[in-house]
Amino acid sequence: MEMGELLARRLSRIEASDVREILKLTEGRQVISLAGGLPDPRVFPREELAEITREIIEEKGEAALQYSPTRGVTAFLEVLRGFLSQRGVRVSGDDGLLVATGSQEALFLAGLALVNPGDIVVVEKPTYLAAVNVFRFFQARLVPVRLDEEGMDTVELERVLREAEERGERVKMVYTVPTAQNPSGVSMSMERRRHLMELASAYDLLVIEDDPYSYFMFEETDFTFLKTLDTEGRVLYLGTSSKILTPGLRLGWAVGPEPIIAAMETAKQTVDLHSSTLSQFIAMEAMKRGIVDRTARRAREIYREKRDAMLEEMEAHFPRGIRWTRPVGGFFSFVYLPEGMDAKEMLPEAVEKYQVAYVPGYSFYVDGTGRNTMRLSFSFPPVDVLREGVRRLARFLQDKMK
Amino acid sequence: MEMGELLARRLSRIEASDVREILKLTEGRQVISLAGGLPDPRVFPREELAEITREIIEEKGEAALQYSPTRGVTAFLEVLRGFLSQRGVRVSGDDGLLVATGSQEALFLAGLALVNPGDIVVVEKPTYLAAVNVFRFFQARLVPVRLDEEGMDTVELERVLREAEERGERVKMVYTVPTAQNPSGVSMSMERRRHLMELASAYDLLVIEDDPYSYFMFEETDFTFLKTLDTEGRVLYLGTSSKILTPGLRLGWAVGPEPIIAAMETAKQTVDLHSSTLSQFIAMEAMKRGIVDRTARRAREIYREKRDAMLEEMEAHFPRGIRWTRPVGGFFSFVYLPEGMDAKEMLPEAVEKYQVAYVPGYSFYVDGTGRNTMRLSFSFPPVDVLREGVRRLARFLQDKMK
Repeated sequence: MEMGELLARRLSRIEASDVREILKLTEGRQVISLAGGLPDPRVFPREELAEITREIIEEKGEAALQYSPTRGVTAFLEVLRGFLSQRGVRVSGDDGLLVATGSQEALFLAGLALVNPGDIVVVEKPTYLAAVNVFRFFQARLVPVRLDEEGMDTVELERVLREAEERGERVKMVYTVPTAQNPSGVSMSMERRRHLMELASAYDLLVIEDDPYSYFMFEETDFTFLKTLDTEGRVLYLGTSSKILTPGLRLGWAVGPEPIIAAMETAKQTVDLHSSTLSQFIAMEAMKRGIVDRTARRAREIYREKRDAMLEEMEAHFPRGIRWTRPVGGFFSFVYLPEGMDAKEMLPEAVEKYQVAYVPGYSFYVDGTGRNTMRLSFSFPPVDVLREGVRRLARFLQDKMK
Repeated sequence: MEMGELLARRLSRIEASDVREILKLTEGRQVISLAGGLPDPRVFPREELAEITREIIEEKGEAALQYSPTRGVTAFLEVLRGFLSQRGVRVSGDDGLLVATGSQEALFLAGLALVNPGDIVVVEKPTYLAAVNVFRFFQARLVPVRLDEEGMDTVELERVLREAEERGERVKMVYTVPTAQNPSGVSMSMERRRHLMELASAYDLLVIEDDPYSYFMFEETDFTFLKTLDTEGRVLYLGTSSKILTPGLRLGWAVGPEPIIAAMETAKQTVDLHSSTLSQFIAMEAMKRGIVDRTARRAREIYREKRDAMLEEMEAHFPRGIRWTRPVGGFFSFVYLPEGMDAKEMLPEAVEKYQVAYVPGYSFYVDGTGRNTMRLSFSFPPVDVLREGVRRLARFLQDKMK
């Protein structure tokens, strides 16, 4: 069977997801997984969703069960516009909105609409793995910029931009998860956000702001969305209902300059025609009735408790010489082991002997570094299981660092 | 804004859908549309779906509202395998199954996995427009083969294959809707199905069998799926729940040789990660409880009545010199006007003066011919509206042919 060249060529560099390999290792064992990033099902507003879905199908089934426009159910787009505006995401008259099959598809469509082979795309170091896969698929050249507790280091970004210019090259795009980042849980400071937007203007950049987590920050944080700081139509903002309602609806959205959204819509006609109409009706009603807001508040309480539990165990039991991020939101903390340690090589032993799993951090680095890092997720396991998992990992690290 | 070259280059040849343009023309008017191919909402089993969806969310919400595997919800894949087998689609041990976001996405993923620029793909003449868009997107060279009341003319196909071979070229793939075709409503005869599979073997072809309509044939028809005739792993079979349950779930599936399905799965990880989990749970329960079978039987009754009404009006009122297909299933009849007439040029007058819309048939021809054809859909309008629409069209055609 002769494979499509596009697929074969473009996917050859994308390794099978480490998360997937780890899940295989854990099958049928008493392993505590700090690897995956699944939401806690306790967050899902099941009773309310069951009731509104029954109502929607009975009362609005003619439309809710029918085909719907590629860009999204028209009424949902309106509700979404209001939902985003109320939360501080500036949606201007020049902006278009598009509903996608998860924000993954929004990213894929953005890549399809905007990335040419060889284009330079700046990402955080570490960055979100699934975004890397999209950019690699479209043969972008990925340039990492370091990240610390204040998010992407925009001074380093400026140097990258200047050096590219000096070489006669141009950086096309910056991809960032500025708020409660995956995999680190940190947020970009306001100073850096402003600096990033100044650089975007000076160097004519497009910015993709990927925002799955901002609606349940664990502390009162004063931040402004890049989309809102933007006055020049440079930011494409991506969101999703996966973490503030449920992932099972498989809905995401993109908001940005109309020409980009129109190109994404054209691509979506060929990719999947439209996203689930029923899912859109459910999300629309959940937004209108305040269910999404209540779910986001509950998510904040549940995940904050888990984050606190994880940090407590790490502080109490992790050996000296290890540092980790303090997540202000999201699902993850990122752990830096001493240089020379290799979290990927260590993983089988962690799973087999200590019954605990994590994601080796090097997957989140586009330059092959980061071997000494790991991503820990606190989102899914019950608190006591989570604590036990972190203690197991601590024992493992103590033994390895003896 | 610099557009992605891939998108710009590949979509430049895809014209805005005629259906869409027509819908714009009809906005705010008393136009009867025979253009779109929407299912009749009376077919949707609303009460049953409302009830099982409530149950699913309440009782299985932990899984049904969560992320799910890229290939599909494991239990749904099992149910689907049984569902297809019971209906005569041979699913062998060497076959893989993949759930997609509508069969449109299954087609897109198949194109991504299999089509290289310049590959020759044979399609019917006329053929399904959205499939053409996918193949063009991946820069296939499309070769049309004529179709009559017995489906694709496999004698002409044989000539095309032989001539390509003589030129030192190779046809890679045949795309067909063999059963109740879109846009013609005809089915491929058993003799031609066998001939097609012989040719596939002799010329080493892959066959995509697109099958949205076979579950509600209007007459007892004796046919075997190409997938079932295939003994050499050459057929990729695509199906959907859109016409036998509801389109709003946005689900399709692909069944075929495991290496192809695995490549499509890899692509889907990057495209949208997975399709709506909730939709899959709903479709699974609807299959298990016989709701899909009951819906397909109701679809048969409702659409047969509409087909009969349309054919009756056409026979009674269409002027001499026009021929049309007699659909054995599906949503459409295809109309051939006398040579020299141009259904696209005529459309604005039909909409403005006669208040009736259709789809010009040339969109379904990949070789620029078919200007004298049109596609009429009988699926959506109530029977009396449908009859009135056909009579309006008849008056229009009488006036044009005076």
